[in-house]
Amino acid sequence: MKKTILDYDTVDLDEENNALVIIDQTKLPGSIELLKITDLKEMWDAIFLLKVRGAPAIGVAAAIGIYVEAVRLAETAKSFEEFYSGFAKARDYLDSARPTAVNLNWALSRMDEVAKRASELPLKDVLEKLHREAIEIREEDIRVCRSIGEYGLTLIKDGDGLLTHCNAGKLAAVKYGTATAPMYIGQEKGYHFRIFSDETRPLLQGARLTSFELHSAGMDVTLICDNMAGSVMRNGWVNAVFVGCDRVAANGDAANKIGTSMVAALAKQYNIPFYVCAPTSTIDMATPSGDEIRIEQRKPEEITEMWYERRMAPNGVKVYNPAFDVTDSSLITGIVTEYGIARPPYAESLERIFAKKSEEKQVK
Amino acid sequence: MKKTILDYDTVDLDEENNALVIIDQTKLPGSIELLKITDLKEMWDAIFLLKVRGAPAIGVAAAIGIYVEAVRLAETAKSFEEFYSGFAKARDYLDSARPTAVNLNWALSRMDEVAKRASELPLKDVLEKLHREAIEIREEDIRVCRSIGEYGLTLIKDGDGLLTHCNAGKLAAVKYGTATAPMYIGQEKGYHFRIFSDETRPLLQGARLTSFELHSAGMDVTLICDNMAGSVMRNGWVNAVFVGCDRVAANGDAANKIGTSMVAALAKQYNIPFYVCAPTSTIDMATPSGDEIRIEQRKPEEITEMWYERRMAPNGVKVYNPAFDVTDSSLITGIVTEYGIARPPYAESLERIFAKKSEEKQVK
Repeated sequence: MKKTILDYDTVDLDEENNALVIIDQTKLPGSIELLKITDLKEMWDAIFLLKVRGAPAIGVAAAIGIYVEAVRLAETAKSFEEFYSGFAKARDYLDSARPTAVNLNWALSRMDEVAKRASELPLKDVLEKLHREAIEIREEDIRVCRSIGEYGLTLIKDGDGLLTHCNAGKLAAVKYGTATAPMYIGQEKGYHFRIFSDETRPLLQGARLTSFELHSAGMDVTLICDNMAGSVMRNGWVNAVFVGCDRVAANGDAANKIGTSMVAALAKQYNIPFYVCAPTSTIDMATPSGDEIRIEQRKPEEITEMWYERRMAPNGVKVYNPAFDVTDSSLITGIVTEYGIARPPYAESLERIFAKKSEEKQVK
Repeated sequence: MKKTILDYDTVDLDEENNALVIIDQTKLPGSIELLKITDLKEMWDAIFLLKVRGAPAIGVAAAIGIYVEAVRLAETAKSFEEFYSGFAKARDYLDSARPTAVNLNWALSRMDEVAKRASELPLKDVLEKLHREAIEIREEDIRVCRSIGEYGLTLIKDGDGLLTHCNAGKLAAVKYGTATAPMYIGQEKGYHFRIFSDETRPLLQGARLTSFELHSAGMDVTLICDNMAGSVMRNGWVNAVFVGCDRVAANGDAANKIGTSMVAALAKQYNIPFYVCAPTSTIDMATPSGDEIRIEQRKPEEITEMWYERRMAPNGVKVYNPAFDVTDSSLITGIVTEYGIARPPYAESLERIFAKKSEEKQVK
């Protein structure tokens, strides 16, 4: 049977060759190329050059990547101190690849904690603990996304029209994705959805990744330009919108790929529920509101040249190219987490989500 | 002094060589190439292939084009009947190049009326009358756009931030454009605006044409992706939106380039006035509302392939590619015509505009 993109893991560990394995996402949808990376500089490049992208996937790649590097370091290190000195350097180096991706620092910090706690053990045991943590971070992502999908599925019904923006799909995580999780879990249960995928300028993650993975999964997906979302809503084709997010503030404001706030404003205009799918790891209770979220500005060439055969804008023209925008919490119908669905007012409902999280951790 | 795009006429008549002269808009902004067209089939291709585009410009090109053909026909015709037989065929042929562009049929009908009314005159005099009508259609466009610009300018002030979508500029008309007319007339008076140009997917008329002509004119123009319009509005950078239109219904609903209705919904969200610039020739009192306006669907490759170095979407994925959308009149602050600004309720204010038009015609 012919393999599709769904048969490949977005991020994995090749135990035999001690390598980080990723799908090179810059080559999609033209060709599926797996990269086996053993070199630290190559890992940094893979994250920096968006060969692996999507906050959850970057976190998992960093965890596996630093484990791979730890194995290499342990081969020559004569003491924990010597080992840890190299480990800490590698951690800081990888962390610098994309400073705004929350999960990169989060995953590296978890691995670092494990290494430091094992300082009294033989290096072989340190490696075993790092191995277990990297695999756990990967498995956790699958469980979290599955849970988001199950909660999300309670918000929709078989036959619904769903719209999504950018790629918060399997290719942005390990499996299921966040915004796409209700679609995948629904498909497992035999549901059919009619899905609209915004192409998502300037980097076209919707065209290149989301429509690719959902089409490969055999779903009914229709690609549209970002400026057509209003038309499909006006036509009555959309019952709910699901998007991912990069950071949710304590008041429920959500930063996500540029254009998300426009989709939210339109959904309100046409009375369509708008859901943000957010693992609790992306909810930042230390950020009071969206006004405090820094919006990354990217280079003009993404708009004027990238993907085009020839330059499509005049030389010298000014370009404004924010990578993200902030959706006001007033436009968000619900925030779907792995611990349930938060509803307005978010200041209270998000607190309850975290209370539930810490309860369940204590039970464990 | 170096010539810019503003030094070239979008559409003109080369009297000496009896040729229709247009700027090849498919080559912009990379190079400015003038086409001198004497052959009827080439004229048809130029319109069909969007070498000349924008409703007003197409109308003027058709008028000049059929005059050029009439001169050729008169060289060999032995009678008015023989001449008119060829003329009518040419008229129908050109009219078939883009069936949805209102002004194509409108301009050809005006030329046809002139020819028929002159049936008793020598062919030389028929040609003279056709020449006068073609030039008048061209000059009229300049006057109409200038008037729209003057009325539009009363809605804004020096220093304002203005946003526009697609190209309803000089390149869509002969001079001034419609949505850009307030900008050009303002510039003549020494005003400075900060202009945001949506790139306008899929065919990028905002990037290729609008930002090009305004940048060439020395204006402060910033190119953005369509999905960034909400961000610039949220930042407080936009004081008013001006767009063109393809057809305005009697109730004020306006069909225009896909994405226009999204910009309108956002403008409402951020309390920014949204103005449609419409020559009365694009106001169709015979169409009751936007629901009766047929929306042209275009081919998927415009989204999946066109302008890209390689295919950016998976093979076989469904695509929805409407060329236009309808903006509900409830989202439109005002419709700027050459006879003044119509305000809600449009059913009444548009009637008043046409009453004024017919009054002024009678005075002439």
